[in-house]
Amino acid sequence: MPDTLARLEATIAARRDADPAASYVAALFTKGLPRIAQKLGEEAFETVIAAMDGSVQSIASEAADLLFHLMVLLSATGVPFEDVLAELDRREGKSGLEEKAERPKAPPPKPETAAAPLPSPASPAPPSRRPLIRKG
Amino acid sequence: MPDTLARLEATIAARRDADPAASYVAALFTKGLPRIAQKLGEEAFETVIAAMDGSVQSIASEAADLLFHLMVLLSATGVPFEDVLAELDRREGKSGLEEKAERPKAPPPKPETAAAPLPSPASPAPPSRRPLIRKG
Amino acid sequence: MPDTLARLEATIAARRDADPAASYVAALFTKGLPRIAQKLGEEAFETVIAAMDGSVQSIASEAADLLFHLMVLLSATGVPFEDVLAELDRREGKSGLEEKAERPKAPPPKPETAAAPLPSPASPAPPSRRPLIRKG
Amino acid sequence: MPDTLARLEATIAARRDADPAASYVAALFTKGLPRIAQKLGEEAFETVIAAMDGSVQSIASEAADLLFHLMVLLSATGVPFEDVLAELDRREGKSGLEEKAERPKAPPPKPETAAAPLPSPASPAPPSRRPLIRKG
Repeated sequence: MPDTLARLEATIAARRDADPAASYVAALFTKGLPRIAQKLGEEAFETVIAAMDGSVQSIASEAADLLFHLMVLLSATGVPFEDVLAELDRREGKSGLEEKAERPKAPPPKPETAAAPLPSPASPAPPSRRPLIRKG
Repeated sequence: MPDTLARLEATIAARRDADPAASYVAALFTKGLPRIAQKLGEEAFETVIAAMDGSVQSIASEAADLLFHLMVLLSATGVPFEDVLAELDRREGKSGLEEKAERPKAPPPKPETAAAPLPSPASPAPPSRRPLIRKG
Repeated sequence: MPDTLARLEATIAARRDADPAASYVAALFTKGLPRIAQKLGEEAFETVIAAMDGSVQSIASEAADLLFHLMVLLSATGVPFEDVLAELDRREGKSGLEEKAERPKAPPPKPETAAAPLPSPASPAPPSRRPLIRKG
Repeated sequence: MPDTLARLEATIAARRDADPAASYVAALFTKGLPRIAQKLGEEAFETVIAAMDGSVQSIASEAADLLFHLMVLLSATGVPFEDVLAELDRREGKSGLEEKAERPKAPPPKPETAAAPLPSPASPAPPSRRPLIRKG
């Protein structure tokens, strides 16, 4: 995994239980999954609007915002970024059209990956803490 | 940069001028930037909805779709993924709140990075070809 | 309420329990709230992209799609369109900045409006039917 | 057209050239179409997230925000809300599936409706003012 993204994932994991007054990540986690999802959505629109507006210089910045908030949402829902890369690897080597044709039908089974939402090795969440995601 | 994402970026660059009937990437490029932007938007909503729905098992798949179409949009607008990672690195080490405070004001100046949209080493775009992005 | 939108709301209410093979509305309801929300999101991006692309002639069409799927989502969550208009009326007469300042803090209390999701006078939902929305 | 929405459209038209320090609408117009589009996108995500979160009481409020910013975007791009209602009327009476099948192919031709962006009867925009939308 890229150094930058591995570091970012670790930073998010480290900050999510920090003081919300000092950490933007902790502030997002305190507000909960709906707020995290909202931020991802805002950044998706900002990325698209920068691209459509021809604001080439701001596209990298907006894409960084989008990627950052995607990593926060993955952390909030207990999905390792490694799983996202594995999914991309799995599709590699197929033509996109083959891949697209099979995509909606077969979400990859991952019975054994725990995907426990909000695990926190260093400081486990107190029992009363509302989980950020409900299991579907 | 992560192997998976470097490979994905190279695959997109290689396929964008391929036969649209055989390549999903080429088909997207033929349809143009609005369609690429639309796909990114759809995947952003699908990621958010999967998270809100508690569909943990589909989050990695939707996030992969989102990342894939973000890479396509970056390619279409001539922004190397390296620039996005550099932007994330630049922010690293600052608290998110510091970083957030300064973010809207100062988009990183990158006068010298060419960011030429749609460069294609092997088969240069014909002069009449409509660029996927207008410079702002 | 405008004739067009009142008629549209009635049409959606009438079709939601129809044969999914014959009615787009019924097909959406069969697929459930995540699919309805996804469609609203797609149309929001299409509206924004049409506007940013300068495709003036398609903006009305995309906005109609967005409004249509918003009405479907309101129906799926048991919110009468009248409530949305009432909320707009409530804000009327204030300057937008006053209104905006007070908006996030004070969502209007509406204890007495039933807002029962998925009521269906003619053909009540069978008990086993999964409601389209969970109460928060 | 519904009284509420007709009034809202008139209010937006009246305020768009007002003092940006006193009017939220004028402030949005001063920031330009990308900002208006961004707000519409934010509200679309907030509506979807409220619905998915089961926050029934906030759905009407979020939907009002979405509708408000859609009206602002229509104003910014010179599209009368009447055109959106006319498009919905045009589809009425067809089954949604028929309608959907024909929708992508045939956007309604409207050569004669001027759809001039940013017309302002009372106070015409100064010539140097950047239009909010480029003709496609």
